[in-house]
Amino acid sequence: MAEKQKATIVLFSGDFDKVFAAFTIATGTLAAGIDTTLFVTFWGLNAIRKDVLTGKGLFGRMVGVMNRGGLDRIGPSKFNFGGIGRWMFKKMMKDKKVTMLPELRQMMIDLGVHFYACKTSMDVMEIDPDVLIPEVKGVVGVATMVEVAAKSQIQFFI
Amino acid sequence: MAEKQKATIVLFSGDFDKVFAAFTIATGTLAAGIDTTLFVTFWGLNAIRKDVLTGKGLFGRMVGVMNRGGLDRIGPSKFNFGGIGRWMFKKMMKDKKVTMLPELRQMMIDLGVHFYACKTSMDVMEIDPDVLIPEVKGVVGVATMVEVAAKSQIQFFI
Amino acid sequence: MAEKQKATIVLFSGDFDKVFAAFTIATGTLAAGIDTTLFVTFWGLNAIRKDVLTGKGLFGRMVGVMNRGGLDRIGPSKFNFGGIGRWMFKKMMKDKKVTMLPELRQMMIDLGVHFYACKTSMDVMEIDPDVLIPEVKGVVGVATMVEVAAKSQIQFFI
Repeated sequence: MAEKQKATIVLFSGDFDKVFAAFTIATGTLAAGIDTTLFVTFWGLNAIRKDVLTGKGLFGRMVGVMNRGGLDRIGPSKFNFGGIGRWMFKKMMKDKKVTMLPELRQMMIDLGVHFYACKTSMDVMEIDPDVLIPEVKGVVGVATMVEVAAKSQIQFFI
Repeated sequence: MAEKQKATIVLFSGDFDKVFAAFTIATGTLAAGIDTTLFVTFWGLNAIRKDVLTGKGLFGRMVGVMNRGGLDRIGPSKFNFGGIGRWMFKKMMKDKKVTMLPELRQMMIDLGVHFYACKTSMDVMEIDPDVLIPEVKGVVGVATMVEVAAKSQIQFFI
Repeated sequence: MAEKQKATIVLFSGDFDKVFAAFTIATGTLAAGIDTTLFVTFWGLNAIRKDVLTGKGLFGRMVGVMNRGGLDRIGPSKFNFGGIGRWMFKKMMKDKKVTMLPELRQMMIDLGVHFYACKTSMDVMEIDPDVLIPEVKGVVGVATMVEVAAKSQIQFFI
């Protein structure tokens, strides 16, 4: 194990809780000195956009969606904690001073994470590369992901 | 690394977008010369049935569900792209000429993918093996999956 | 491969079907003699609580949620089997005598599974460690998960 260890996370989900889990895991691997790559695809692309995760970004919108749709929009699995919703979840996180998504993302960047955006998703969603944060190292196809993942000790699809 | 590299994907989800992600990743590993196995379980079993993914199959039904239930049935995570729904997503994919699910599945088969169906799920769901596409190599238990996964460089649960 | 093989499962979901999949996979790895660790986080924490998975626990509540919310609360992916809901799914599992969650969990414990609860989630959700089953070996941070996962041949995020 002379070569540096690697971790590959495919971030498919754009759900607040799953993005939080992905960012927390990546921060953990980076802190452990593991070379960490996030291949961001589909709904996850929101997590590496300029216009979200800042100010009224993802959080604001999430709350907006919640207010508009109410807790009825949240699937059964989310009722496990006695009806806790994302809005409450977010509030609790803030109260607990858990590092929030924008701070976690910045920490990942400072620790040298490699962000790649999935080309197919970008095309399908008609997302312009300009809307992505400048730290994204490239818009790539699945072949690049496979190459890195095959050399990674840790791989997760989130 | 004299032996051929392996990839194991447990396909649990039957969601259009996740099946698409799983098929895209598998096509990528196969194209990279990696021996690729898909263990298909629960909702994912739809993706290897004869009667879906063809003609009015999965696509038609998806649209049917959408029309019947409306976009209200789609959880909050799917609202991230400004309210885009699966129907619109599918339409955009077609417009962009992205390879659709049936074509992706055929490509995987041509590249030598190993499809296995989960026995427990088949029993619970009362799915007859006859409804599965003939390319499915067997209906197996979790032990078979574990054996292959333990030798795989790439593993994802989707 | 002189050292014992390892498997790491991050159990994030609290959905009945996904917990069932995670427990089945873990039972499979344990049965194959693989040292298996489950890092349980977010909604998954329900699966290692004392007060669920027993008697009227998770099952009872699930049914309660179903009755209250109706099948409308289940997302489109779950409509793939002709409108089958979790309630029906549970009933079918029972009819088929598939090992249910509490039995699966006990089997995992008997086979020597390592359960760890995610500290951040516990804090955010305000879950007291006392509500967890005594077999949980500790409430740990992401660093512990990363350390084990990096040595694992099998890793899944469920």
